[in-house]
Amino acid sequence: MTLGRGPLPALLYEDLLRAALVEDLGRAGDVTTDAIVPVDLRGTGEIRVRQDAVVAGVDVAARAFTLYDPTVQVVPCVVDGARVAAGEVLVQIEGPLRALLTAERTALNLLGRLSGIATATADLVALVAGTGTEIVCTRKTTPGLRFLEKYAVRVGGGSNHRFGLDDAVLVKDNHVAVAGGVTEAVHRVRATVGHLVKVEVEVDSLAQLDEVLGLDGIDAVLLDNFDLDALADAVRRVDGRLVTEASGGITPERVRAVAECGVDLISTGWLTHSVRNVDVGLDC
Amino acid sequence: MTLGRGPLPALLYEDLLRAALVEDLGRAGDVTTDAIVPVDLRGTGEIRVRQDAVVAGVDVAARAFTLYDPTVQVVPCVVDGARVAAGEVLVQIEGPLRALLTAERTALNLLGRLSGIATATADLVALVAGTGTEIVCTRKTTPGLRFLEKYAVRVGGGSNHRFGLDDAVLVKDNHVAVAGGVTEAVHRVRATVGHLVKVEVEVDSLAQLDEVLGLDGIDAVLLDNFDLDALADAVRRVDGRLVTEASGGITPERVRAVAECGVDLISTGWLTHSVRNVDVGLDC
Amino acid sequence: MTLGRGPLPALLYEDLLRAALVEDLGRAGDVTTDAIVPVDLRGTGEIRVRQDAVVAGVDVAARAFTLYDPTVQVVPCVVDGARVAAGEVLVQIEGPLRALLTAERTALNLLGRLSGIATATADLVALVAGTGTEIVCTRKTTPGLRFLEKYAVRVGGGSNHRFGLDDAVLVKDNHVAVAGGVTEAVHRVRATVGHLVKVEVEVDSLAQLDEVLGLDGIDAVLLDNFDLDALADAVRRVDGRLVTEASGGITPERVRAVAECGVDLISTGWLTHSVRNVDVGLDC
Amino acid sequence: MTLGRGPLPALLYEDLLRAALVEDLGRAGDVTTDAIVPVDLRGTGEIRVRQDAVVAGVDVAARAFTLYDPTVQVVPCVVDGARVAAGEVLVQIEGPLRALLTAERTALNLLGRLSGIATATADLVALVAGTGTEIVCTRKTTPGLRFLEKYAVRVGGGSNHRFGLDDAVLVKDNHVAVAGGVTEAVHRVRATVGHLVKVEVEVDSLAQLDEVLGLDGIDAVLLDNFDLDALADAVRRVDGRLVTEASGGITPERVRAVAECGVDLISTGWLTHSVRNVDVGLDC
Amino acid sequence: MTLGRGPLPALLYEDLLRAALVEDLGRAGDVTTDAIVPVDLRGTGEIRVRQDAVVAGVDVAARAFTLYDPTVQVVPCVVDGARVAAGEVLVQIEGPLRALLTAERTALNLLGRLSGIATATADLVALVAGTGTEIVCTRKTTPGLRFLEKYAVRVGGGSNHRFGLDDAVLVKDNHVAVAGGVTEAVHRVRATVGHLVKVEVEVDSLAQLDEVLGLDGIDAVLLDNFDLDALADAVRRVDGRLVTEASGGITPERVRAVAECGVDLISTGWLTHSVRNVDVGLDC
Amino acid sequence: MTLGRGPLPALLYEDLLRAALVEDLGRAGDVTTDAIVPVDLRGTGEIRVRQDAVVAGVDVAARAFTLYDPTVQVVPCVVDGARVAAGEVLVQIEGPLRALLTAERTALNLLGRLSGIATATADLVALVAGTGTEIVCTRKTTPGLRFLEKYAVRVGGGSNHRFGLDDAVLVKDNHVAVAGGVTEAVHRVRATVGHLVKVEVEVDSLAQLDEVLGLDGIDAVLLDNFDLDALADAVRRVDGRLVTEASGGITPERVRAVAECGVDLISTGWLTHSVRNVDVGLDC
Repeated sequence: MTLGRGPLPALLYEDLLRAALVEDLGRAGDVTTDAIVPVDLRGTGEIRVRQDAVVAGVDVAARAFTLYDPTVQVVPCVVDGARVAAGEVLVQIEGPLRALLTAERTALNLLGRLSGIATATADLVALVAGTGTEIVCTRKTTPGLRFLEKYAVRVGGGSNHRFGLDDAVLVKDNHVAVAGGVTEAVHRVRATVGHLVKVEVEVDSLAQLDEVLGLDGIDAVLLDNFDLDALADAVRRVDGRLVTEASGGITPERVRAVAECGVDLISTGWLTHSVRNVDVGLDC
Repeated sequence: MTLGRGPLPALLYEDLLRAALVEDLGRAGDVTTDAIVPVDLRGTGEIRVRQDAVVAGVDVAARAFTLYDPTVQVVPCVVDGARVAAGEVLVQIEGPLRALLTAERTALNLLGRLSGIATATADLVALVAGTGTEIVCTRKTTPGLRFLEKYAVRVGGGSNHRFGLDDAVLVKDNHVAVAGGVTEAVHRVRATVGHLVKVEVEVDSLAQLDEVLGLDGIDAVLLDNFDLDALADAVRRVDGRLVTEASGGITPERVRAVAECGVDLISTGWLTHSVRNVDVGLDC
Repeated sequence: MTLGRGPLPALLYEDLLRAALVEDLGRAGDVTTDAIVPVDLRGTGEIRVRQDAVVAGVDVAARAFTLYDPTVQVVPCVVDGARVAAGEVLVQIEGPLRALLTAERTALNLLGRLSGIATATADLVALVAGTGTEIVCTRKTTPGLRFLEKYAVRVGGGSNHRFGLDDAVLVKDNHVAVAGGVTEAVHRVRATVGHLVKVEVEVDSLAQLDEVLGLDGIDAVLLDNFDLDALADAVRRVDGRLVTEASGGITPERVRAVAECGVDLISTGWLTHSVRNVDVGLDC
Repeated sequence: MTLGRGPLPALLYEDLLRAALVEDLGRAGDVTTDAIVPVDLRGTGEIRVRQDAVVAGVDVAARAFTLYDPTVQVVPCVVDGARVAAGEVLVQIEGPLRALLTAERTALNLLGRLSGIATATADLVALVAGTGTEIVCTRKTTPGLRFLEKYAVRVGGGSNHRFGLDDAVLVKDNHVAVAGGVTEAVHRVRATVGHLVKVEVEVDSLAQLDEVLGLDGIDAVLLDNFDLDALADAVRRVDGRLVTEASGGITPERVRAVAECGVDLISTGWLTHSVRNVDVGLDC
Repeated sequence: MTLGRGPLPALLYEDLLRAALVEDLGRAGDVTTDAIVPVDLRGTGEIRVRQDAVVAGVDVAARAFTLYDPTVQVVPCVVDGARVAAGEVLVQIEGPLRALLTAERTALNLLGRLSGIATATADLVALVAGTGTEIVCTRKTTPGLRFLEKYAVRVGGGSNHRFGLDDAVLVKDNHVAVAGGVTEAVHRVRATVGHLVKVEVEVDSLAQLDEVLGLDGIDAVLLDNFDLDALADAVRRVDGRLVTEASGGITPERVRAVAECGVDLISTGWLTHSVRNVDVGLDC
Repeated sequence: MTLGRGPLPALLYEDLLRAALVEDLGRAGDVTTDAIVPVDLRGTGEIRVRQDAVVAGVDVAARAFTLYDPTVQVVPCVVDGARVAAGEVLVQIEGPLRALLTAERTALNLLGRLSGIATATADLVALVAGTGTEIVCTRKTTPGLRFLEKYAVRVGGGSNHRFGLDDAVLVKDNHVAVAGGVTEAVHRVRATVGHLVKVEVEVDSLAQLDEVLGLDGIDAVLLDNFDLDALADAVRRVDGRLVTEASGGITPERVRAVAECGVDLISTGWLTHSVRNVDVGLDC
């Protein structure tokens, strides 16, 4: 029995795949393959990973081939979240050789990127193992790919911050300035949003934190660019009343020290905006 | 007089911007800002770069604000391709404060990514300065963003490889295998593609290169994973009859040595698939 | 200074308006108007409400005219949320008479529906005035119009339940059955969703409620089809530890009695799926 | 042998269904179901109607499940137009339990609305049984759903007025005013529209009717807001030369009296804009 | 005062224009123009017709330029339907020279095609001048362009047949065969379609015509591939009770003889599917 | 073994087919067929060609039926490029008779147009047989159909010019004027476009040709509106150093004489913008 969130519904990414295939096909299709490979020649291929990684996007990549040509047969060999070693086969493919060669790049571009995110996430998660702290993404994602990139973060063992401007409140410094104070800002928010919307407030000092701690209707506090001492102090002051999130300047070198301050969450944008693709290839 | 390729037509990226804004707005818009900021409050903001960089995407980022709200005024302060220092202002913005805060993330996500690509490209270009070798991208791009990412490579001083499977021929090992040899593969290609389609052939040995050099109708040769000695030898054998492209294992450390082998082009996928965003922020 | 959520960004509904106009124009446009009304004849018109109502959709309706013809001038006379009397003017319009007559139906269809929802909501809100109970909508909305219909609920003084399956957890009977109990169901949810996702659990008996009250990580409880005595009892047992929502069989006749049981929220689907349009018309 | 118009082609509504599913799935899918229900657990369900009704939208609702997950099996148990009693099963479903729970709301929202329209139509049709008068809808439909709502009217035994501004002419008071009289208005129309476009003219007095009766090239007359005596008089004057349509103030209480005036058609907007959904539910 | 149908609403063709521009721009835009023409160089141009013609599509062509670049100024010099001589200027354009050169082909492709249809229509109309017969198009149009091509037929002085399968009934031989006779076919149609849908029946013999003439509820008869004698006989038999349409083998040489048989309409598919573009060019 | 470019990927034209079907179905579907033909009646049909032709679009036409109704069975009887005689069967179809009648026009409109282009191309190709000259299309295509029309040119034995403004450079008179000479124009182009982009220059005199011949980095020259003597002279001067293309005033009568001047390519726009459809019909 497979529990947990599991695979994304294909309906959510099929339009993206179709658009990505058309982006690559342009107005004339794969002129090289169509010129050289007979239309009725079938072949087999294997998508392999060329470095140790945590895989994400296996179903997405497999679907690229069957969307391009429904007669292609794909057999995923691992599930998303698997930790694989360089050389392992991720997907086996059989079908018209033209389809294999033509859909290859679209499939690999997504598989490489999502696996890159999952792997980077898993690496951070490993660094904070045992602390109870979770690794969290941000809204610094690639336009059009947010739902996939946030999925890859989950696959890597991380957790998702809000998906957009609409599904949770995050009160930032500009909001506080306009409202004339965090108390008024939170009051305005609570007066308008529904009962299923959580509220997080960003603070950049312990003084601000203390003001926040005096307010009702807040679920989480984002401690922005706190140094380690201040972080530990902040966690003590919160004392479990709010979810605490550390943000700003998170690096692999520093992440464990941050976690050991006792924060519930550590968020970082580079998990989605600056991650290195995992090297994957198709061998036919 | 501004020559060269210049800005992309907005028509090419406005749909992408709209989709990116909607991706972030979701079904309820910016619930934080709408709760706190009065609808009729105007404000100003400046997009600043927080690290030295080569900028790309200034017009794209500016257009995000005016697409969200046509009453916003944007003034770009630099043009794409400018080398800027940390702290410089890239765009000045004036308009309803709600619009500034709501469109911010969409604008910055694209500006950061495109500038990241331009900067990485410019850094590589600088490393091969004086050799006459050009830096070239690949098709390893983000689904949906290829035209923008290739634009950013140009902004950074690089040159574009083909845009898709349709606008040029690239004969790879699988094609050669199916055709039973590179001679037959090239023959099949030349018999079907038009007179404005260039043909490049990938080779992985000097022996293969020699076979290619005996053929008509080829414009370029991709020397895949050649070591430096072999590269230099290959360039000598080609002797200017074909454009030569080195590919595989290109790193900043190794790129100049590769260029000094005399190849015309050096291509690398990580310019688009694994680059780090440039840090940009909006100060209101 | 206008506070509160305020108007929806036009970007969110312009595509819908365009599609609605095209749905009405078909493949030949307004054949009656185009045959009879000279192309250069301008005119004026007023959208009036023909019954007492709470108005929603004024900006949406006005935008229908300017999307169809950007030379039309529209002047909204009231803001969404205004309580108006039969005969009041909501929008004044000036422009090519063809545009006024052709865009009329699209504008009125949306204005009538959204005002119908706002008015029905306001009527329910009035019925529970003073109790502190909020009126809440559901996901029983019209396909394609959810964000607008939920907006109209807010305009009418109601509050929004979740916007989709993704922005909050609602554990229902089927989920509990699969998990083998509400405790396990909540455990599975808490193990996978992010820190900004709220969790509500549906119960249909006081016994189930008691089990829920023993669990951590729940924000709200939906008391489904409880009679009044059970509702009051439930509120007492919850004692402010969770948000309480009453659902099922909510009618105008019964809503105040439900509210007086002390629940925080009363939700009902007919606010969006079975509401009567407000009668609005265009007089030219 | 099934005659009559029969089911709509799925091609016409599949895009709408996909958009409705995505509207509900948002950017993360069904977070509750995905957290709790194992991905490989299959289940069965039955869509039941919870009140007596005339059903419309069975195929549409069934298609929602198979679009979301093509491995779902659906068996419609009734055809659109069937009069069903509370408790009857409309569709049997078998497949991954996740798919059943996730697509449920989209399917039910459409089935409930279309059945609501069909039932309301059938109720009106029953009230005028034996008079020879037909019940007709208007263009007061929900943006994006017109073709489905007009289909539901047919399913309920009603007939369709024009589908848009383009497929028939309806000369209204504003048109007459611009033309300087109904004679000139009809002349202008006849001079421009094709031979397959019917022409209907709205009149609001017997005097106007008499002018219309003197004209050629008119197919139908809309008697707007006539009282019963005037209606009967109008029908006598028309004497079968034109199709007669009564409109304005049509209620269930009054509809038979209107029909007994002898009009061919009675049209009313609330069949589509203000109808109550039929209560339908999915039992798993 | 401009009467008649007049221009199409731009809303109907802007999406088509945008798609056509993007089809031409591809993924890199106009590489020639962008390389050579300075971004800030403005210029002027004139669209001229290079042969005598009836013009259609002036507004459409002009809009191509302003959609590509809103700073372009366009001044139409003629209105659709004008008969122009070789060399006349149709549109004057001023703006960034890049925009003029880049949008040129999209504008001209549509202007040439629509003018080709209008001119061919006008030529046929002239050939039947004085007979009272109208020239009518068919559904043999270009996928995606039907509304524009039917517009061009009107501009040329022709009239439109139905716009699709949905806005009028045309009973053809296959329908008659399935129904077991034209009487039953017409009966089935009349039992299901609304009061604003006209019914035309195709016949291919005088015997079939006689059967049709005995039926109620028919508006028009299509006389398919009748020779001239049979046509004249058919018109006599119909005697004004139905609209008569001649179809099949219509050529410029034969069209007047057909018209002189007294038919109301002559329809031909080649007006839209096989017409020659009018030669138009942009001089900068 | 089938070599050559072969069929287009269905992914490239399915959206176009869907849009074309919806364009014809409108908002109510095929009202005639749905009224007359029982929903469960199956039938067979054959698409026949009614004139000698070279066929293109067989797969496209066949897909129209299965997209409309996946239970339709289609059996193509010829492949694109086949030369067929009047009366031959191109596709056999079996399925619900409604689907056959409803999708017919969409299928035939595309099949007729594409076959018209292929046939006209093949006719031109036959006229220049033995000369070694190729027939080439232009960008004067139908908006939205370019990739299909260029495919039909290939099917007819012709070759494709560039697909858009982005995949090759064509320096025209306006570009030369702006640059102040062809030398500067070519220089600007070469400085900006990638190594896989070919460059063609249009010249209208032998003097211009001589200037072009002195430049590096040009692949082809377009000899615009040269008379036969000048063409022959031009070919001699080029002497194989560039691809030569003749353009302007190409007619079937003149094409062989042009070819015999020795040009490599002859291009003409009317292959795509003014071709006559091939007459195809569906017999059920």
